[in-house]
Amino acid sequence: MEKLKKNERVTALVKILSDNPNHIFTLSYFSELLHAAKSTISEDISAVKKIIEQMSLGIIETIPGAQGGVRYRTEVNNKQTMEFLKDLCIKLKDSSRIIPGSFIYMSDIMYDPSYAARVGEIFASKFADKAADYVVTIETKGIIPAIMTARALNIPLVIARRDNRVTEGATISINYVSGSSHKIQTMSLSKRSLKEQSRVIVIDDFMKAGGTIKGLYDLMHEFRAEVVGTGVIVSTLEPKNKLIGEYYSLFLLKEVDNISRHIDIEIGI
Amino acid sequence: MEKLKKNERVTALVKILSDNPNHIFTLSYFSELLHAAKSTISEDISAVKKIIEQMSLGIIETIPGAQGGVRYRTEVNNKQTMEFLKDLCIKLKDSSRIIPGSFIYMSDIMYDPSYAARVGEIFASKFADKAADYVVTIETKGIIPAIMTARALNIPLVIARRDNRVTEGATISINYVSGSSHKIQTMSLSKRSLKEQSRVIVIDDFMKAGGTIKGLYDLMHEFRAEVVGTGVIVSTLEPKNKLIGEYYSLFLLKEVDNISRHIDIEIGI
Repeated sequence: MEKLKKNERVTALVKILSDNPNHIFTLSYFSELLHAAKSTISEDISAVKKIIEQMSLGIIETIPGAQGGVRYRTEVNNKQTMEFLKDLCIKLKDSSRIIPGSFIYMSDIMYDPSYAARVGEIFASKFADKAADYVVTIETKGIIPAIMTARALNIPLVIARRDNRVTEGATISINYVSGSSHKIQTMSLSKRSLKEQSRVIVIDDFMKAGGTIKGLYDLMHEFRAEVVGTGVIVSTLEPKNKLIGEYYSLFLLKEVDNISRHIDIEIGI
Repeated sequence: MEKLKKNERVTALVKILSDNPNHIFTLSYFSELLHAAKSTISEDISAVKKIIEQMSLGIIETIPGAQGGVRYRTEVNNKQTMEFLKDLCIKLKDSSRIIPGSFIYMSDIMYDPSYAARVGEIFASKFADKAADYVVTIETKGIIPAIMTARALNIPLVIARRDNRVTEGATISINYVSGSSHKIQTMSLSKRSLKEQSRVIVIDDFMKAGGTIKGLYDLMHEFRAEVVGTGVIVSTLEPKNKLIGEYYSLFLLKEVDNISRHIDIEIGI
């Protein structure tokens, strides 16, 4: 391969770092790949770092020492988060989203990959310093924001099931009481899913009383795991007393009025 | 903002294009953002295109005309796909994955975001020219490869449910016979999920006889949607006669021997 120009090395550096958030690459890796001295790569990284951070496109971290190298981290700042949530809030207020039972249809937004990726980046930015080992969620709708958060943090996702599928091997199950319907339900997780003493972030799409998330906490307790952060996309104003403590909710749903066809929702952070 | 150097413009270009696969940006967008003439941006794009494609990091496409611009497309070539699948195949053969019932535990790989992202990119590369409007899957395990495929193609994901949740509004349901267990099951999809006459790609994690995927085909028929591609991660050798026609399977599972603790699996493409 011929010698690369600076802008060519920079192109490859940015693409590879950005495709692998939170993954530490050694200078040697890039030095070999791009046929350039480590000192040259180091200068390239400084140039990339400067512009990525100046344009609020994320963080480039250099880690000194023998285990050192460079990594890209997702970072959505407050201004970017608020702009994104404002735009989304307008979409969520659209009265045509009201469905019988005063629910809001949100799947078109939740399952749109560019929205989902941004939501994951927002949660990842919020919980970046928690040194989490896993993102944990429960099927079904929580899976999308949870995998996007896991992707941005470069940690594995764990999905609790509402039943007990045979293809998961030995499982640990718990019963929990849904906070709003007061029904007893079950959630299970394969014993292989989590290492003991793990630090986990819980992500879900929707929270009313918090019974399901409380169930996930109890399940984590069985795995001797510590919940170090909880993020939901939408939480409801009522009931005011939730079954869990601190959580990070992107939106606060105050009321869905099926008669006047009005959705009262606001940014929750 | 001061005038940017070429390598600084290139950094921003690559980051933004790569974060938004299949999204067309106009030259004016970058011209404004980076305070440079369109002719300069055009030269930058040529430089980026050359090195991204030379290093097999994807495709940069320029679209001429009034609606034109530039976009990044995921492209995993055959060599990269085979290397990735070879590595994964070794991991899948590990006999400690065998769980009672001769199943293989795969969740740790399936839910690892970097593996999942790569699987999605491979499916996206395979189906890039199908002009699909949606990726369709059924809960639960298919969701991860499906959202990653949707992300790489920048099209929405649609998730069929195995039950009939109230929060989805009016649904269309079908009954289907699981090809292996011969049990009658139900799958449902919100009427709002898909526009009529859509082109869809079906993605799932595992296929034995193909009953579930056949069910998804029938469900798509109800929405007057056309299935233009089907991708699964693992399909089984037996039964040889599947309930569906053409499909793209990354792995072929021949046998799981619970006695000798041997997993016979090979690359399926």
